[in-house]
Amino acid sequence: MVIDVALVPAEIQGNQQLSRYAVVVIDVLRATSTIVTALHAGATAVVPVVDAEEASRLAEALGGSAILGGERGGVALPGFHVGNSPLEYTAERVNERVVVLTTTNGTHALRMVHGAAAVATGAFLNAAAVVRWAVAQLEVGRELLLVCAGSLGRFSWEDACFAGLVVERVRLQVGDRLQVTDGARAAEQAWLATGKSPVAAIEMSCHGAGLDRLGFGQDLTYCSQLSTIDALPELWEGRLLLKES
Amino acid sequence: MVIDVALVPAEIQGNQQLSRYAVVVIDVLRATSTIVTALHAGATAVVPVVDAEEASRLAEALGGSAILGGERGGVALPGFHVGNSPLEYTAERVNERVVVLTTTNGTHALRMVHGAAAVATGAFLNAAAVVRWAVAQLEVGRELLLVCAGSLGRFSWEDACFAGLVVERVRLQVGDRLQVTDGARAAEQAWLATGKSPVAAIEMSCHGAGLDRLGFGQDLTYCSQLSTIDALPELWEGRLLLKES
Repeated sequence: MVIDVALVPAEIQGNQQLSRYAVVVIDVLRATSTIVTALHAGATAVVPVVDAEEASRLAEALGGSAILGGERGGVALPGFHVGNSPLEYTAERVNERVVVLTTTNGTHALRMVHGAAAVATGAFLNAAAVVRWAVAQLEVGRELLLVCAGSLGRFSWEDACFAGLVVERVRLQVGDRLQVTDGARAAEQAWLATGKSPVAAIEMSCHGAGLDRLGFGQDLTYCSQLSTIDALPELWEGRLLLKES
Repeated sequence: MVIDVALVPAEIQGNQQLSRYAVVVIDVLRATSTIVTALHAGATAVVPVVDAEEASRLAEALGGSAILGGERGGVALPGFHVGNSPLEYTAERVNERVVVLTTTNGTHALRMVHGAAAVATGAFLNAAAVVRWAVAQLEVGRELLLVCAGSLGRFSWEDACFAGLVVERVRLQVGDRLQVTDGARAAEQAWLATGKSPVAAIEMSCHGAGLDRLGFGQDLTYCSQLSTIDALPELWEGRLLLKES
């Protein structure tokens, strides 16, 4: 049983072996926190789109009911209904609607894992569901690859810390059968250095400090919550959905 | 004072800001261990070349005295004088000769930092010299960037551990003035997880295990030595040299 962590998406560029992996895409601040929040609030699907103009066109094509959300550099996009703050994705706003989402890093990472055997998204908010899914994927013989979205191609501390949490908890369940790669080992050490605290992980991160300066302090508090949402977004034909569990 | 670590070379791809950085390229297993060994053994210069054919042509152009060294996948190249084992770079073989070196990861990383204010190479063997140079670069107002060569685009534990050693020791000298990036923090945690042991760093690494299987166990022991060579290879017009210190 192999668990691997790509510390930045570029690590998997051109990887022809993705079909043997179950992949978890991680963008704690904030795409994958927002995705699980929106689906839990009743959105029927979240469609991740890399390009902002393509996102606008797609939302239009879906008709008036679609919610267009996203950011660049942490800031909401002009003409969009909502930004990338998970707190904006309330049931009142998204229930029974499709969300089209474009973000600086997370949607890019989701695009890069095309071809994987299965793709889910993870954040501290849905940690327990991610770990359960990860163990199940290993048990059916897949290898596990956690992809940290990072920030503009650079490594992000908080994403690695969440990946490390998954490595640690999966090992607790499967024991010595687990083989960790160098990247998985580094992620686990980052997580242990936080004292296993999502709050510390986010406070220590450069990205967290940047969002705080932009006035998104409440988002940081929200995204630091551990396993408050028992749901797992999975990618099906380009859409993130909650499957029956 | 900023210290940054690129955990894989792709993190700095397209970075237009390299001119404000003093860069240390790190490929513990084995390019940067080999480079400092060859120069310390009396080689007049090491010329890093990405392409094996280009390396052959260059060695030929330099005349019969040049030493052609390198590997692909850890194994020596056909027609080359030596592989990438530092133990091959003895004074008898390299003294007063130019070494043309092509390796899977290290020479690639050296190519990617083109445009930096200054470039040196580091490994456990010359740790003390690297730290001294790093502090001096910070003192003259440059930012410091440690680039881990990794392995075929993937993260390598042992390179991050050495980067973490530099972060830790630089902080001991410059104190609270040091600002660390997310990548520098992760590297430092990797280093601390080894118990500050180069031997442990190399034993824990996937790359070390692979070289051991190829029969290069002696190289691992050699590359685990700490600060046994007090010399700093610096890049000048495409050649790595030892400057007078």
